[in-house]
Amino acid sequence: MCAWREVEGNLATPRGFRAAAVAAGIKKVAGALDLALIFSDARDTAAAGMFTTNRVTAAPVELSRRHLKETRGWARAVIVNSGNANACTGAEGLRTSQETARAAAKLLGLSPRQVLVASTGVIGVPLKLDLILNQLPVLVRNLSIENAEDVPRAIRTTDTFSKSCVLRTEAGVRSVCLAGVAKGAGMIHPRMATMLAFITTDAAVAPTVLRDTLRAAVNGSFNRITVDGDTSTNDTVLVLASGASGVTVRSGAKSASWFAAGLAELCQTLAKLIAKDGEGASKLVAVEVRGAKTAADADRVARAIANSPLVKTALAGSDPNWGRILCAAGYSGARFDPAKVDILVNDFFLCRAGLDAGFDDDDARRELDQKQLTIRIDLHQGRASGRIWTCDLTHD
Amino acid sequence: MCAWREVEGNLATPRGFRAAAVAAGIKKVAGALDLALIFSDARDTAAAGMFTTNRVTAAPVELSRRHLKETRGWARAVIVNSGNANACTGAEGLRTSQETARAAAKLLGLSPRQVLVASTGVIGVPLKLDLILNQLPVLVRNLSIENAEDVPRAIRTTDTFSKSCVLRTEAGVRSVCLAGVAKGAGMIHPRMATMLAFITTDAAVAPTVLRDTLRAAVNGSFNRITVDGDTSTNDTVLVLASGASGVTVRSGAKSASWFAAGLAELCQTLAKLIAKDGEGASKLVAVEVRGAKTAADADRVARAIANSPLVKTALAGSDPNWGRILCAAGYSGARFDPAKVDILVNDFFLCRAGLDAGFDDDDARRELDQKQLTIRIDLHQGRASGRIWTCDLTHD
Repeated sequence: MCAWREVEGNLATPRGFRAAAVAAGIKKVAGALDLALIFSDARDTAAAGMFTTNRVTAAPVELSRRHLKETRGWARAVIVNSGNANACTGAEGLRTSQETARAAAKLLGLSPRQVLVASTGVIGVPLKLDLILNQLPVLVRNLSIENAEDVPRAIRTTDTFSKSCVLRTEAGVRSVCLAGVAKGAGMIHPRMATMLAFITTDAAVAPTVLRDTLRAAVNGSFNRITVDGDTSTNDTVLVLASGASGVTVRSGAKSASWFAAGLAELCQTLAKLIAKDGEGASKLVAVEVRGAKTAADADRVARAIANSPLVKTALAGSDPNWGRILCAAGYSGARFDPAKVDILVNDFFLCRAGLDAGFDDDDARRELDQKQLTIRIDLHQGRASGRIWTCDLTHD
Repeated sequence: MCAWREVEGNLATPRGFRAAAVAAGIKKVAGALDLALIFSDARDTAAAGMFTTNRVTAAPVELSRRHLKETRGWARAVIVNSGNANACTGAEGLRTSQETARAAAKLLGLSPRQVLVASTGVIGVPLKLDLILNQLPVLVRNLSIENAEDVPRAIRTTDTFSKSCVLRTEAGVRSVCLAGVAKGAGMIHPRMATMLAFITTDAAVAPTVLRDTLRAAVNGSFNRITVDGDTSTNDTVLVLASGASGVTVRSGAKSASWFAAGLAELCQTLAKLIAKDGEGASKLVAVEVRGAKTAADADRVARAIANSPLVKTALAGSDPNWGRILCAAGYSGARFDPAKVDILVNDFFLCRAGLDAGFDDDDARRELDQKQLTIRIDLHQGRASGRIWTCDLTHD
């Protein structure tokens, strides 16, 4: 197997897929794309999803979960809208999602259960079913490889740029492709906005394998920018595998590990794009914790630092205020001895054994004055490590 | 007993106290007050303290804790500086706090253990002992009832206004007084900045009673704006009881409950002033949760809502976006059925049984457009309740 490499393309670059997007009038801005359809021509398209852990779940999340369960992971279409989350909308909202799936299924010649649904936007406001039903025939008519280009734009809400990634690898004489689009962004904590991601692949993957691989990839990527349980009502990651490449991924085989590596890389790329697009963000920051007693402790420290507004504003100003970093670690709940802690930006020591490392302020500022940087914390308590991506916080 | 009433005054309005403040040059702004001394003339002055739960504790916190333990709660002076937190400063930092206490004790004719120390300001930078030692004689010379007026200003860092409160009540022919000053403020989460409060009273209270009463008062006030464990390196609340009123507070007696009521009221007033002074704040918001299964659940929901940047910006814009409130409750970790939840601003229904209450948008905005308001959430799951104070978040 060769490594996965990034290539030009869209959600329909993996074989077997077509997609389209339209302006259905759900967003307030006239002519803004807000409804997209992703479709697989392959009869045996496997599907898997990961959803919000919020106790309040939107209607489309409930319905997609149900459809994946009922079909045991076979689905051929995703219909997604932006501009309205269809969350906190009660029985009427669920009906809207159901009717959407039913109408799309009819036009595509599928069972309604083979259609997954996702929404993002304002909460608590009824989603007008008519706006969607009116445009479904147009969407189905426009399904094509080229039109898949529009999907990332159609799922944006407060995002300042579209997020997509396509990866390809060679498997003998054949090639396999993975593509993904995402939306996220939002305020201050990237974790507070709805995160959607849709992934297509032409590998042939059984639903159970697809589900397990997706879970691992999401835990190492989107959940690295999202606090467990600290999610919106609509967070959704869906993957469809058409099998059209003719390359089969088998559980326990080598193919499983290269497919897992590709899916992990794709999800990490999309997750980093989301972190980068946090409102008021000018830098992409990785927080790496080493030497923790347990992985849970490493995670706690990384998240506390990544979410501290005081740390984030210091990063925005390239201010080497490592005391704020140590303070955030201190309230994270992790067990450690402050007198042992090292703190670095990239390879530059700010704090050694809990004390100022005696650095030159200008040198430190130069190190911090980069668009991508890593804050490294070594607790010197054990061997566990963890990493979180975040952004800085400017006053814009 | 009469009720406690707010009166004019300062930390030296309770009998037995004097105080003073000077500009010692610790703050960068020339002439800014940054060092204060609070002193009790009464030989048997009881003292109690509550400190940060952060794993990283500043030198003055370590020293004050130690002094209160060694003396079993007898202390007659507090020396506090702003401009430098003396945190993450290692053994040298502890020596600085010790020398400060020792020098103050010598000038005041006390044992060093009778002097408590507090600091607030930048972390990780050595605090210059000389700046303090140079000014201690001036401070001691200037100790007076009038000069106590300067203390709240001397402990400010990013605070935009000084915070103090004085309460008086009549106990038979005598009157008892409680006074307090505080500093807090900071960024976005009020909880992220150092919180200091110093309280004086002329009631006679045994150290153990004083400690227990203080703990209850802090839990119902400062800890209502501060997440447990989510505290700065320097958070400190100290109380000194001179006994100079001649009125004794006895454990288990009626006097214990009126004293507790007064201390609770004083701490709540100061805590609300801190919440009001959050950076970018224009409103003081109480988040009240009812109908929770357990007090812990009520607390989780209240804190999740109070700390949600999405909720806080909606509040700033008087935007009746109750979906954001329900979403925050959903990721709080509390157990509840979203379909049962009511959400109100003051007495105005925004959401009834998980759905839009069908309110008039202008009416809702008028209700939200107040300087003080209450967000009320009824989970309809049980009988537990909880309350948190917070502020909105404007873009200033």
